[in-house]
Amino acid sequence: MKPVKIGLLGLGTVGSGTVQILQRNTKEIAGRTGRAIEILLIAVRDINRPRSIDTRSIELTQDPYAVVNHPDIDIVVELIGGDTFAKDLVMKAIANGKHVITANKALIANYGNEIFEQAQQQGVVVAFEAAVAGGIPIIKALREGLAANQIEWLAGIINGTSNFILTEMKEKGREFADVLAEAQQLGYAEADPTFDVEGVDAAHKLAILTSIAFGVTLKFDKVAMEGITDITPLDVSYAEQLGYHIKHLGFARKTQQGIEMRVHPTLIPRQRLIANVDGVMNAILVKGDAVGPTLYYGAGAGGKATGSAVVADLIDVVRTLTSDPDNRVPHLAFQADALVDLPILPLTQIETAYYLRLSLLDKAGVLAEITQILGQHHISIEAVIQKEPSNENTPAVTMIMLTHKVIEQHMNQAIVAMERLDSVMAKVVKIRLEHLNK
Amino acid sequence: MKPVKIGLLGLGTVGSGTVQILQRNTKEIAGRTGRAIEILLIAVRDINRPRSIDTRSIELTQDPYAVVNHPDIDIVVELIGGDTFAKDLVMKAIANGKHVITANKALIANYGNEIFEQAQQQGVVVAFEAAVAGGIPIIKALREGLAANQIEWLAGIINGTSNFILTEMKEKGREFADVLAEAQQLGYAEADPTFDVEGVDAAHKLAILTSIAFGVTLKFDKVAMEGITDITPLDVSYAEQLGYHIKHLGFARKTQQGIEMRVHPTLIPRQRLIANVDGVMNAILVKGDAVGPTLYYGAGAGGKATGSAVVADLIDVVRTLTSDPDNRVPHLAFQADALVDLPILPLTQIETAYYLRLSLLDKAGVLAEITQILGQHHISIEAVIQKEPSNENTPAVTMIMLTHKVIEQHMNQAIVAMERLDSVMAKVVKIRLEHLNK
Repeated sequence: MKPVKIGLLGLGTVGSGTVQILQRNTKEIAGRTGRAIEILLIAVRDINRPRSIDTRSIELTQDPYAVVNHPDIDIVVELIGGDTFAKDLVMKAIANGKHVITANKALIANYGNEIFEQAQQQGVVVAFEAAVAGGIPIIKALREGLAANQIEWLAGIINGTSNFILTEMKEKGREFADVLAEAQQLGYAEADPTFDVEGVDAAHKLAILTSIAFGVTLKFDKVAMEGITDITPLDVSYAEQLGYHIKHLGFARKTQQGIEMRVHPTLIPRQRLIANVDGVMNAILVKGDAVGPTLYYGAGAGGKATGSAVVADLIDVVRTLTSDPDNRVPHLAFQADALVDLPILPLTQIETAYYLRLSLLDKAGVLAEITQILGQHHISIEAVIQKEPSNENTPAVTMIMLTHKVIEQHMNQAIVAMERLDSVMAKVVKIRLEHLNK
Repeated sequence: MKPVKIGLLGLGTVGSGTVQILQRNTKEIAGRTGRAIEILLIAVRDINRPRSIDTRSIELTQDPYAVVNHPDIDIVVELIGGDTFAKDLVMKAIANGKHVITANKALIANYGNEIFEQAQQQGVVVAFEAAVAGGIPIIKALREGLAANQIEWLAGIINGTSNFILTEMKEKGREFADVLAEAQQLGYAEADPTFDVEGVDAAHKLAILTSIAFGVTLKFDKVAMEGITDITPLDVSYAEQLGYHIKHLGFARKTQQGIEMRVHPTLIPRQRLIANVDGVMNAILVKGDAVGPTLYYGAGAGGKATGSAVVADLIDVVRTLTSDPDNRVPHLAFQADALVDLPILPLTQIETAYYLRLSLLDKAGVLAEITQILGQHHISIEAVIQKEPSNENTPAVTMIMLTHKVIEQHMNQAIVAMERLDSVMAKVVKIRLEHLNK
């Protein structure tokens, strides 16, 4: 069969990784697909920039529209990132009848519904394995491997920078800001780390995972989002003492009331496999009604790991070039007319367990006041530890509580009531806790 | 679109799980595939046996050939197990132009080459996700998700019974035979547990994984196989003290000399995620040249978990019904003409690290004798611990050594030489060790 011709938009980290894989594993890939993949044209920002990869046999252009409009290109690979410009290019490629592969989570999370609708009308595929968790084939696992299941919930460590920072805080007792600075030096974190440490990047990925898990349209604006900037070594250490690791988790669950879709620091029992995913690695734990829990682990970023997902998508798309569009795997796992519009629950309505840290006046009757408030809000306690004041000059004791599951609104009300007490000497620290065992 | 009609061979644990999933998740599955799946006929051993599932709307037969010869059946699902009879049925179904789905690892490991060749000639698919690691979509991950990669090695905990036994031995210091008896009572192990504890079941699965990882034909008879029957609580405990867990591992690696394909007890550093996969759960760690290490974890057995893989295959096959056979995912990951015939290395030629337990006469100069022999065979030591005799009446001390990597033949020669020494008082215990970190 004749080679499939592709064009790339962007030749940064992921673009270079993708080209390297296609060059190094040419024979392997042709052996799998039965046909060769040929890079016809790559759009770059600066054609004269020195590159780490060999581009002598590939034509470069500074005009990305030359790629999406090229008559001989079958598949456009979008690796420039960002969203508005990338969207314009992708929509143009689709309008030109080209299949698209993208690693762009912001693009899919924000504009996926529109993009997929357009793609369906044009009978082309938009593949986005690389947009979530880098090289881990989680999109394929969810859309195809677990297709027999009603997915009940999923939980993912899907931002490597946050996981690296929390791992360092846990293992070395370091402060958030200190580790962040190192992560920036190591190149794990951007100069502006907001997207990583405030949870935006994880929220993009969670929005995508939620859609394909439950068959709902993409609703990025409904993701409840908290980052790790407020996590202290003290809380990491108390969590450890109670048998938990703190991870920045993307969590989605289907309930009778709607869908929980939230990104936040989370205590996880240390005996769970996912609690032991450390450093920059990613992992997603998925609970299906038939299969039970399954976990997928690997590198969530990096040129070659993400390129692995891009090229896997390429091979998939090459295989479907001749297939009836109606029999392809649907973009959001379910046929467009089978997507359901379930409500996304606001954070106040989610149900979870909590870790609370209270700073209390060291006098008789204080604990009774606290437990009375918790009781009034139907919050029951699973574990309590009390820490004696670290020096004699402070009248405060620290109390750590783990609660059973409760609606977040009730917890918030209880915290407001507790903070009104004279004996509560500082803001109550609240971190969510998921057992991830059923 | 009109429903796809399927027939089942067998209605045991996996058959019942499959039917339950198709009944419970009918809407979900139709929403994904865009068409319904209808069970037309199921062949059972005894039509009158009471069943836990609702078969009122399904026709049952005691004649399996009625299924494979049924003119209206598009897909035959083989779930009777065993190999020779199952093979005859599967070949007949293929000859009749039907697609086949099977959970039968023995069948694929032993006769896969012949079956796939016949299927290709007939233009049908034989899908076997359920044959390896139950509900974990590892076949899909390897054949498609990691298709961009040259796979370097893979390591799997792929027999739940063995993993349950080793986990109990580790956590409770119990003896092998004692835990096996419990596993049999719990239904994890068969009355004849040979296939599980001697490694045959794991070897079937490893043969399949090896083929699709490296693009070689199936060679089950070349799998080097050791079970867990000789593992003692003593060795489990010493391994722990050195920072390792003992797991029954299927391991395959591509080397310059050929392919290592072996199943045996293995020490793994406890900080590896896979070392912490406990109980009956399965996991496969795969190292690709682009993606790095990825891990897949889940239930490796059970009716509904395995049924999850069967139904995922069903959905896949339904999607390819109209597709050009040349553009399907090849059975063994690579196009038939791209499969390579690499030699499978005998156990004597593999290269690995070792745990050695020696029972030595407690006198001066013994250690020098041992280290001299190791040196002569180019074996270097990574760690040694010496245990004082547990009571004064025995003149023996126990010495545990971890070695660096060495060709197994050299290790075997060194052991023969050590066992000839007067100061070596018992057979040397040898367990392989894999770091699984590069």
